Amino acid sequence: MSTDRIYNFSAGPSMLPLSVLEEAAAEMTNYRGTGMSVMEMSHRGKAYVAIFEETKADLKRAMNIPDTHEIIFMQGGATLQFAAIPMNLIGKTGKADYAITGNFSNVAMKEAKKYGEVAIACSSEDRNHTYIPEQKDIKVSGDASYFHYCANNTIYGTEWHYIPETGDVPIVCDMSSNILTTPLDVSKFGIIYGGVQKNMAPAGAAVVIIDKKLAGNEHPLTPKLLSYKVMIDSDSMVNTPPCYTIYMLGLVLKWLDKQGGIAGISKIKAEKAKYIYDVLDDSKMFIGCADKGSRSDMNVTFRTSSEELDAQFIKEAKAAGFDTLKGHRNVGGMRASIYNAMPMEGTIKLAAFMRDFEVRNK
Amino acid sequence: MSTDRIYNFSAGPSMLPLSVLEEAAAEMTNYRGTGMSVMEMSHRGKAYVAIFEETKADLKRAMNIPDTHEIIFMQGGATLQFAAIPMNLIGKTGKADYAITGNFSNVAMKEAKKYGEVAIACSSEDRNHTYIPEQKDIKVSGDASYFHYCANNTIYGTEWHYIPETGDVPIVCDMSSNILTTPLDVSKFGIIYGGVQKNMAPAGAAVVIIDKKLAGNEHPLTPKLLSYKVMIDSDSMVNTPPCYTIYMLGLVLKWLDKQGGIAGISKIKAEKAKYIYDVLDDSKMFIGCADKGSRSDMNVTFRTSSEELDAQFIKEAKAAGFDTLKGHRNVGGMRASIYNAMPMEGTIKLAAFMRDFEVRNK
Repeated sequence: MSTDRIYNFSAGPSMLPLSVLEEAAAEMTNYRGTGMSVMEMSHRGKAYVAIFEETKADLKRAMNIPDTHEIIFMQGGATLQFAAIPMNLIGKTGKADYAITGNFSNVAMKEAKKYGEVAIACSSEDRNHTYIPEQKDIKVSGDASYFHYCANNTIYGTEWHYIPETGDVPIVCDMSSNILTTPLDVSKFGIIYGGVQKNMAPAGAAVVIIDKKLAGNEHPLTPKLLSYKVMIDSDSMVNTPPCYTIYMLGLVLKWLDKQGGIAGISKIKAEKAKYIYDVLDDSKMFIGCADKGSRSDMNVTFRTSSEELDAQFIKEAKAAGFDTLKGHRNVGGMRASIYNAMPMEGTIKLAAFMRDFEVRNK
Repeated sequence: MSTDRIYNFSAGPSMLPLSVLEEAAAEMTNYRGTGMSVMEMSHRGKAYVAIFEETKADLKRAMNIPDTHEIIFMQGGATLQFAAIPMNLIGKTGKADYAITGNFSNVAMKEAKKYGEVAIACSSEDRNHTYIPEQKDIKVSGDASYFHYCANNTIYGTEWHYIPETGDVPIVCDMSSNILTTPLDVSKFGIIYGGVQKNMAPAGAAVVIIDKKLAGNEHPLTPKLLSYKVMIDSDSMVNTPPCYTIYMLGLVLKWLDKQGGIAGISKIKAEKAKYIYDVLDDSKMFIGCADKGSRSDMNVTFRTSSEELDAQFIKEAKAAGFDTLKGHRNVGGMRASIYNAMPMEGTIKLAAFMRDFEVRNK
């Protein structure tokens, strides 16, 4: 790690691989002999179309996306998808099921209520979203157009470690904060979507991976740019896509490949998380906020027994080069977000810092 | 100009100032001592909020935006605004007026028809959009919620050189391709909006400058992220904004300031356009596609008397370092897009190349 860089534990936007940033900087004014920046390229020109198609192909390969599914690049992050999903899908029966396991699944549900009838299939609100419900606690409506859940809850530090069984009801999953981290059978999903600003690229795009047979039944008031059908038919080029963000995703995917792809990174991320969770499990000072079986490998939430000590920890950590460790106000305490681009040594050093802090403050 | 760079006449995305690209590259891995890239910053962190607020303030100053108006940063380019505008505004009377002067105003009108009743206030379709209608030919409906026009038509190479009079009907103007080029009285507009990828920044954002009193009456099915009221109230931070694109806009605005601001650049852009229009006016080979009084300073459309000669010109120009000069299929011939970041020498050299081409092919 370059000595002038910090370990940035932000929940998103968050770290990008240093080699990716260096590559982007190196070809900023002249992309591989084209005489222009990727930022300056016509999105319909040869040079950019090649970047676009290669990125799509690399994502398809990395996630092993079947031909039944299409990759769409959109804008507006996951939040705009919270509307696009019901606008495109809820019309089939007028109903949808939502699993409520944190803030974003709740926001998604509220948005869906504008467009149809919504049932809560399960909720972890009773214990402030410190856990993920079990399969037996999920109630899927037979007539739901889709079942929606958020695979990783950044604020609460919980993660679904299984794909729910929903019978014939298509699964729509917000993977904003854990996409590209665990091998998945994509065919089990109707839609996988996410904002890119955690594990994929700088903020400014959403990736939607959709079973093509779900497209084409949108509400008549759906903006053209939010129609999955229109986006599929135009290969995400109804208008100018977020070209540079997609290019950055391409660089990240090449980097991911060097980590052994998703299979490789999934071992690395588990090891990274374990360094910090081991501290929590050994500690008499630090307390993990999430139930053990529901812990997220992406966002580790923890606290001490006092807000004063939390504040002291955050302050000293920042001075030591561990940035943005303050927890979300809904949970308090600390949160270490350790997405794919957080180097292993960042988590090792944070774990060591935590152990040392505990010794110093017994 | 760096010798390895080409003159890129793309209609958008298009050239950015070289100094801006160099600055972005230089601070890519460590923004001014923060130890991180702008791409990696939490959008709610101090470092990024400072960039965001400074960019907003610089845009307000550059365009002399009155306090009655608010700047919103959105995503999805102008195309998503084609829906957002009627979703937010048409409900007042159920009706809106559209001036049809090219492809994008037409697409905007079609989208608006989903949400209300639309009247064509004027149209240049009778002569393939080669001209801008005069004030006397514009029919404004007294009960229109707004009047919409597109200030510069990239495909046809025409530009409105006056602001239409619409009485009490608020003016909504798509300035995607000529924003930041001409001093304007912003108070005359209800909304000025545009995709950023021509004169402002790399693709991936839309800027909306809105008279605050127009917000707050959106259709109940409006996605939260497309509600002007919600965006104003959250200072464009309902969710993660397109952070890096906004940062690049900030760098472009600093560069614009060094060109003398909009007053300065407006003289430069007129001079740049004149070099090429003078060739057209002197030539026996090249023919301007737009009526003289309606010519755009941003997109110069022209052709020769034969498609073969057009093709030869485009090919030879490309070999000489003048890229992306092919006209849009709706017009044919050639198009030189010369936005703010096209250096003066790019237009001087293109003009010289055109004169030389004519001599060589008499």
